[in-house]
Amino acid sequence: LNPGLSALPTTIFTVMSALAAEHGAINLGQGFPDTEGPAELVAEAARTLSDPDLGEARNQYPPLTGLPVLREAVAAANRRFHGLEIDPAREVIVTSGATEALAASLAALVAPGDEVVVIEPLYDTYLPTLRLLGATPRLVRLEPPDWRLPVAALEAAFGPKTKALLFNSPMNPTGKVFTREELAVLAGLLERHDAYAVCDEVYEHLVFGAARHIPLMTLPGMRHRAIRIGSAGKTFSFTGWKVGYVTADASLAPTIAKAHQNLTFTTAPNLQRATALGLGLDDAYFAQLAATLAARRDRLAAGLRALGLDVLGCDGSYFLIADISAHLRPGEDDLAFCQRMTREARVTAIPLSAFYDGATSGLEGRCVRFAFCKRERVLDEAVSRLHAWL
Amino acid sequence: LNPGLSALPTTIFTVMSALAAEHGAINLGQGFPDTEGPAELVAEAARTLSDPDLGEARNQYPPLTGLPVLREAVAAANRRFHGLEIDPAREVIVTSGATEALAASLAALVAPGDEVVVIEPLYDTYLPTLRLLGATPRLVRLEPPDWRLPVAALEAAFGPKTKALLFNSPMNPTGKVFTREELAVLAGLLERHDAYAVCDEVYEHLVFGAARHIPLMTLPGMRHRAIRIGSAGKTFSFTGWKVGYVTADASLAPTIAKAHQNLTFTTAPNLQRATALGLGLDDAYFAQLAATLAARRDRLAAGLRALGLDVLGCDGSYFLIADISAHLRPGEDDLAFCQRMTREARVTAIPLSAFYDGATSGLEGRCVRFAFCKRERVLDEAVSRLHAWL
Ligand SMILES: CSCCC(=O)C(=O)O
Ligand SMILES: CSCCC(=O)C(=O)O
Repeated sequence: LNPGLSALPTTIFTVMSALAAEHGAINLGQGFPDTEGPAELVAEAARTLSDPDLGEARNQYPPLTGLPVLREAVAAANRRFHGLEIDPAREVIVTSGATEALAASLAALVAPGDEVVVIEPLYDTYLPTLRLLGATPRLVRLEPPDWRLPVAALEAAFGPKTKALLFNSPMNPTGKVFTREELAVLAGLLERHDAYAVCDEVYEHLVFGAARHIPLMTLPGMRHRAIRIGSAGKTFSFTGWKVGYVTADASLAPTIAKAHQNLTFTTAPNLQRATALGLGLDDAYFAQLAATLAARRDRLAAGLRALGLDVLGCDGSYFLIADISAHLRPGEDDLAFCQRMTREARVTAIPLSAFYDGATSGLEGRCVRFAFCKRERVLDEAVSRLHAWL
Repeated sequence: LNPGLSALPTTIFTVMSALAAEHGAINLGQGFPDTEGPAELVAEAARTLSDPDLGEARNQYPPLTGLPVLREAVAAANRRFHGLEIDPAREVIVTSGATEALAASLAALVAPGDEVVVIEPLYDTYLPTLRLLGATPRLVRLEPPDWRLPVAALEAAFGPKTKALLFNSPMNPTGKVFTREELAVLAGLLERHDAYAVCDEVYEHLVFGAARHIPLMTLPGMRHRAIRIGSAGKTFSFTGWKVGYVTADASLAPTIAKAHQNLTFTTAPNLQRATALGLGLDDAYFAQLAATLAARRDRLAAGLRALGLDVLGCDGSYFLIADISAHLRPGEDDLAFCQRMTREARVTAIPLSAFYDGATSGLEGRCVRFAFCKRERVLDEAVSRLHAWL
């Protein structure tokens, strides 16, 4: 069997969710909300499964790159939120979730031997996907507590074989939202090395307070270098729907579509229609989504701080990181800590080290990630369980 | 960009469907039914989008390998139809369509440099997917009109680097259903060369008359060598839903699941639930599905024969092949013929040569494939348009 795949562990999210279920723990591990998005999207998804006016467009193959109504909605959202002018016919591809969007984008860009600069901590499909494609990852590490971009290390990671940069902003698990200055550094490197960027922007609408999500694609010179990936699951709180979308220049999109053609071909039309409706919701929906999550972040952060934990900053995403150095037993790592916390406190989190490929000897090996995309009483109960335990 | 992908043409099915739409042609090209499957599946898919009892299991991430209810239904169908005992917890993986199932299965098996024996005519994602994975396809060609298995060529294609065989039965576009004798030849080669088989069985329930679909997995010694791929789209006439399922021995399934984890991760839960309901329908449903399609095959075949066309045999699938040698203009190939037929007769079919990788100098270059999974009056109208045209 493929040695890279057979040696791969089952994703930490599945492993920790199973452990949480086994112990009746509150699952603040795997990132999914416990409150669904707009009821009108559910109604649209249900209605269009049996709308007589749709005929074959109802439940048979939709077009390869997605239903026109959703591609137009993605283009309109690019214009509304970022002033980007995107051709819905040629520059948008609907995928079966952002995971497929990542795989298709990377497959389109890289050939065996190419190097891809990847920013750690990273999402756990990045490296296996690159390795499956025969690409060589060049890792650049961000470290807690401030996740500063290490410019010299980045410059060293780029080279003549660099085909692409792969990164996530707003960033899971750090909650970091890349600033315009940081993005300008990346843009400079991409231009200098004639490389592309795969921008995992699934948390684009989950940004808090004064922070602003800036797509790399909006920076000068980046229109045809940056591939932007969005997620209906994260934007509308239906993580099971697995509807993703890629925005890419017309010079790139057709090749991404070829990869998509061979990976899944299309995505269920009723969920595409519901997603299109969602992207057309008024600004109040998006503001409310972010405000609700910001309040949950604040509530969990306050609760953890009251327990004496050091909680790191978080400007976006579903996730908050806490330093658990003081609570580690001798020889215990952050994974063992998360397992023990699940068993004993019945609260589940994800060890930060799971987002690093190599050894984690610094603070990045002594932190855990809590998902705060949960109802307030669930967060409160988690804090009170931790209080009783610590 | 990835040269293999950027050079790839858009799938012939999308190209011909677009041409059909442009000319108002009856689209007997891309294989999708114009009559939906059971209304109760639509009702289940709609109901479970908002079932309050399901909680987070309603619209958030389902388990990585699929909802238990669907994995159990796949295992039960394996038992009911083929006497196979499958462990639903460890030997079934739900995917985002059979296309992803193929990609995940191949990714699990092959590493760069491995060879995969592929039987032509073939479905158009096979070769690009193998090439993306760095595998070398070894093609073995079946030829019209009888599609006999060329045993000597097969033996020559297997060798020390052979990792797998990839084939489709019931077979698109030929309508061939592999016999037990033919499968035994394949099984012998797989054992001799210690290789696996990826069995694209999406048309497993679309088999007509005395023909019987036999999964290679049921042959002696094949339980742990054959990976079986099924499709809710084809089995329940909802090609847009993109729900597929893989049945594989516990020695293989975890590695396929790892590939799936990185390609799409999961598939929409409501469509999984509807598919589970479908797989539990009584035998009458499956018999009726096949009988209805057999009648449509007969109706289209009779109509084409009345026009003087030579129609090849067809025991399964959505497709019928007709020899159009007598109607080709000098220098015209089957693709040009299909384009002209779309423009002039306003009936669309797929050139058989599209299913071959190399040159098609024999009869395989002078045939076209018609999809008969359409209402009878649509088939009749297509025949009458062809009658007026020929
Ligand atoms: C695909 S399961 C993981 C969900 C997620 O994005 C996370 O928890 O980081
Ligand atoms: C995925 S579109 C093609 C449908 C099909 O299987 C065919 O027409 O052969």
